Amino acid sequence: MARTAQFVAERGGNLVHAEHHVDRSTGLFLMRLEWELESFELDRAGVGSAFSPLAEAIDATWSLHFSDVRPRIAVWVTRQGHCLADLLLRAAAGELNCDLRFVLGNHPDLREMAERFGVPFHHVPTATGGGPATTEAAQLELLRVHDIDLVVLAKYMQVLSRDLLDSCGPVINIHHSFLPAFAGANPYRQAYERGVKIIGATAHYVTADLDAGPIIQQDTVHISHRDGVDDLVRKGRDLERVVLARAVRNHLENRVLVHGNRTSVFE
Amino acid sequence: MARTAQFVAERGGNLVHAEHHVDRSTGLFLMRLEWELESFELDRAGVGSAFSPLAEAIDATWSLHFSDVRPRIAVWVTRQGHCLADLLLRAAAGELNCDLRFVLGNHPDLREMAERFGVPFHHVPTATGGGPATTEAAQLELLRVHDIDLVVLAKYMQVLSRDLLDSCGPVINIHHSFLPAFAGANPYRQAYERGVKIIGATAHYVTADLDAGPIIQQDTVHISHRDGVDDLVRKGRDLERVVLARAVRNHLENRVLVHGNRTSVFE
Amino acid sequence: MARTAQFVAERGGNLVHAEHHVDRSTGLFLMRLEWELESFELDRAGVGSAFSPLAEAIDATWSLHFSDVRPRIAVWVTRQGHCLADLLLRAAAGELNCDLRFVLGNHPDLREMAERFGVPFHHVPTATGGGPATTEAAQLELLRVHDIDLVVLAKYMQVLSRDLLDSCGPVINIHHSFLPAFAGANPYRQAYERGVKIIGATAHYVTADLDAGPIIQQDTVHISHRDGVDDLVRKGRDLERVVLARAVRNHLENRVLVHGNRTSVFE
Amino acid sequence: MARTAQFVAERGGNLVHAEHHVDRSTGLFLMRLEWELESFELDRAGVGSAFSPLAEAIDATWSLHFSDVRPRIAVWVTRQGHCLADLLLRAAAGELNCDLRFVLGNHPDLREMAERFGVPFHHVPTATGGGPATTEAAQLELLRVHDIDLVVLAKYMQVLSRDLLDSCGPVINIHHSFLPAFAGANPYRQAYERGVKIIGATAHYVTADLDAGPIIQQDTVHISHRDGVDDLVRKGRDLERVVLARAVRNHLENRVLVHGNRTSVFE
Repeated sequence: MARTAQFVAERGGNLVHAEHHVDRSTGLFLMRLEWELESFELDRAGVGSAFSPLAEAIDATWSLHFSDVRPRIAVWVTRQGHCLADLLLRAAAGELNCDLRFVLGNHPDLREMAERFGVPFHHVPTATGGGPATTEAAQLELLRVHDIDLVVLAKYMQVLSRDLLDSCGPVINIHHSFLPAFAGANPYRQAYERGVKIIGATAHYVTADLDAGPIIQQDTVHISHRDGVDDLVRKGRDLERVVLARAVRNHLENRVLVHGNRTSVFE
Repeated sequence: MARTAQFVAERGGNLVHAEHHVDRSTGLFLMRLEWELESFELDRAGVGSAFSPLAEAIDATWSLHFSDVRPRIAVWVTRQGHCLADLLLRAAAGELNCDLRFVLGNHPDLREMAERFGVPFHHVPTATGGGPATTEAAQLELLRVHDIDLVVLAKYMQVLSRDLLDSCGPVINIHHSFLPAFAGANPYRQAYERGVKIIGATAHYVTADLDAGPIIQQDTVHISHRDGVDDLVRKGRDLERVVLARAVRNHLENRVLVHGNRTSVFE
Repeated sequence: MARTAQFVAERGGNLVHAEHHVDRSTGLFLMRLEWELESFELDRAGVGSAFSPLAEAIDATWSLHFSDVRPRIAVWVTRQGHCLADLLLRAAAGELNCDLRFVLGNHPDLREMAERFGVPFHHVPTATGGGPATTEAAQLELLRVHDIDLVVLAKYMQVLSRDLLDSCGPVINIHHSFLPAFAGANPYRQAYERGVKIIGATAHYVTADLDAGPIIQQDTVHISHRDGVDDLVRKGRDLERVVLARAVRNHLENRVLVHGNRTSVFE
Repeated sequence: MARTAQFVAERGGNLVHAEHHVDRSTGLFLMRLEWELESFELDRAGVGSAFSPLAEAIDATWSLHFSDVRPRIAVWVTRQGHCLADLLLRAAAGELNCDLRFVLGNHPDLREMAERFGVPFHHVPTATGGGPATTEAAQLELLRVHDIDLVVLAKYMQVLSRDLLDSCGPVINIHHSFLPAFAGANPYRQAYERGVKIIGATAHYVTADLDAGPIIQQDTVHISHRDGVDDLVRKGRDLERVVLARAVRNHLENRVLVHGNRTSVFE
């Protein structure tokens, strides 16, 4: 920590945020530094190469991001529009530091919503003629053409293959339950039948293990016996929107460090 | 509802609380009426027999409780004292309408705590000489002698057999996770390893299916990557105490109606 | 309660919801009954007149609503769009049982947002030529023409006069603090300077006493020393949207009973 | 930050926790470092004097604490025992790193509770013969004799004078409302009458301005129209206990940095 902070200080960087964490179960030392470039003596291109020798010396895994570079994101949806609408609104309001390049739907239902906000919509149905491979090829081509940095699954009700995940960047999903409870399909129905008194939502990075990726954000809300499955779905929607938006925001601001199957979120 | 309310009104009962609920998934109609006996024309012994014909006519399952009869409860523990201490304090402060008759421990550790509050402590170790049957016989004998209405498992780390459950009244347990997530042993360790951002606690009636009985109360608290397993345990303790106390209170005030594996809690 | 329930039952009404509450501080008995008309023997026009004699006999204040009649609402805004956008989305998604007739802004900024959703926008600037009276006349004319049942102030940053309030129906406002803390202007700045660890939002009916009307919904969120005023504003926006939407929904479903300066919300 | 971290690193200190915060509204840089002394080359007595020159050079206000030195605390009460009981239990369970030296009551009611846990109780009635000055002299004498580092007001219903506060160390109070709402007396009654939907509790350092000192912890809980003042009091007790315990714990672990009227709590 001392040497990294010194690296910034010696070159005239003005530290804005500095967070550290010692993960005692793994022995990892995690750090996030954010500094202003105004009086920093290195130009952008030079920061990485100047830092490399130090990183090597302290055996650090690291990445460098500039906060005025807006990541390019794609939002994938099926038929439910509440999370998409929420992201469109936040992006339009400047609350999310990103360039929302396109919306991809495996159904065409949400085209109008995307276009209302001036965002292109691509309809890529699943399992058309050529089978999954064709679908994935079309998806990857869109990601490539638009040079997408982050895919957000905003109620995209299809499982992504390991191949696809290997070929694209990070993917964030919103799951409509408090994982690991009620993984899989129909979590609100499951929750209702179990008679729980709280429901939740979970935003996580997608890995090839369904619903088992590193969790970024979770939240819960109380319910009562008066709530039917419909009420759970409705209350859950408000949770899902907020939890997904927080996770996307955390990611876009480079506040999420993944180690193993866990995350440190430096909020 | 009309006829039941009328039954009370016609006999001069002054209604204090009245709650109803139509459970649409099962078609059940649930109702809880609470009224004052001051100007009620029937004496206590007569209420049940007067109501029976009406109950039969409307095909109702019902029970009758008098709020000045304090249920007799037993608290079972192992080694962790936070839930026991909480119940002792609330009982002593008059916050729980019950007669806390005794504490039973399968370890002797919490004897001093119980006796500090003037409550007898019985040490009934598990699996002594005679095996489970002997243990259970000793437990049931204590319940019988003290005429116990409710057993509260306040971090009692043993599974109760179906036989025992068949022979005693209702049993409330506190599970240190947000069920159904992390059922079974070491939920905080499981939660830590899964990297969740929220932990929970669940109070439920005990059935022969471990951790699957009807849920009465649940609550959750946010955690972060800064929290190790020890912090989860500590934060969880505060949840467990409050969630268990709420459930016990709900039960003692006859606010919990169980139907199938679900509860309606008329708070 | 008995007689009212009987009124419904005798005429073949199938009760869906029934809630009661005895407010012990005032001695009021509050009740909300919801029943299906399918097999009910009175037609709509006849319900009120049939109930009137009973209401008089039991000295009840009452109102009757049909859930398939969608109230007509107007949303008033200034420049901040997050609450408006939220209401537009929920109305479009069928989550709010209402007819959102128009948006009124004292600034023109949110015209595009309203029109994106096909909702007319009226720009009624405050204090133009003719002074407040002219403004209010224009506002009231719009309410009259569209026969508005409910006005929702979704970050409308002007105080309504007593005259205006006397001339229109109920008005719901969202206040960006946990009232009664930080009433008045700049609550997030006030909250920041006081160093609170929680911020809140309050939805309430508007009365002539600024920020003092009956509260319908409130919620809070934890903040930390890491949050600047900007973060409070951003976190507060998510609260405001959800709290306002809940209150509007409660009102539209006729679940809010106002008595004095307090509400009973039969959720 | 760099130089301070270097100070520790160069002398062989193993950093366990490191937190920083730039308070942009004041320009303050706040930092908390925690390191192990095992391989640290300075002995305890030498740390401060070695650090002084650096602190001076960077114009830092600082303090140094050793986590195996258990602060000596006194708990002051009036008649309500729920917060006292909670602190006694946590101290007995080793959850609070402190030496709970004595309980002071201006009424004798809680003597038994303190003594149950083996903690001496001192009855110092307010405004006895000699007036406030005599009371305060007795209080200060107890603090002096026991060399108390922290006074905890656990529902001590008397105002402390500026003189007293000037003569003793830090004092933490629990206020039974979500400050700044409902400062002063009878907050639950005030909350009930205002018809709020949430109640709260606030733990803060005591200053001469009543209820206006720096806030350490706050929390809230939802209530409904079904809750009378008694229910608010009961629900509030659970909040008060937990909020006060968290604040005391934060203080005892030296996680609270006060600047102006605000705190940074490095949890």
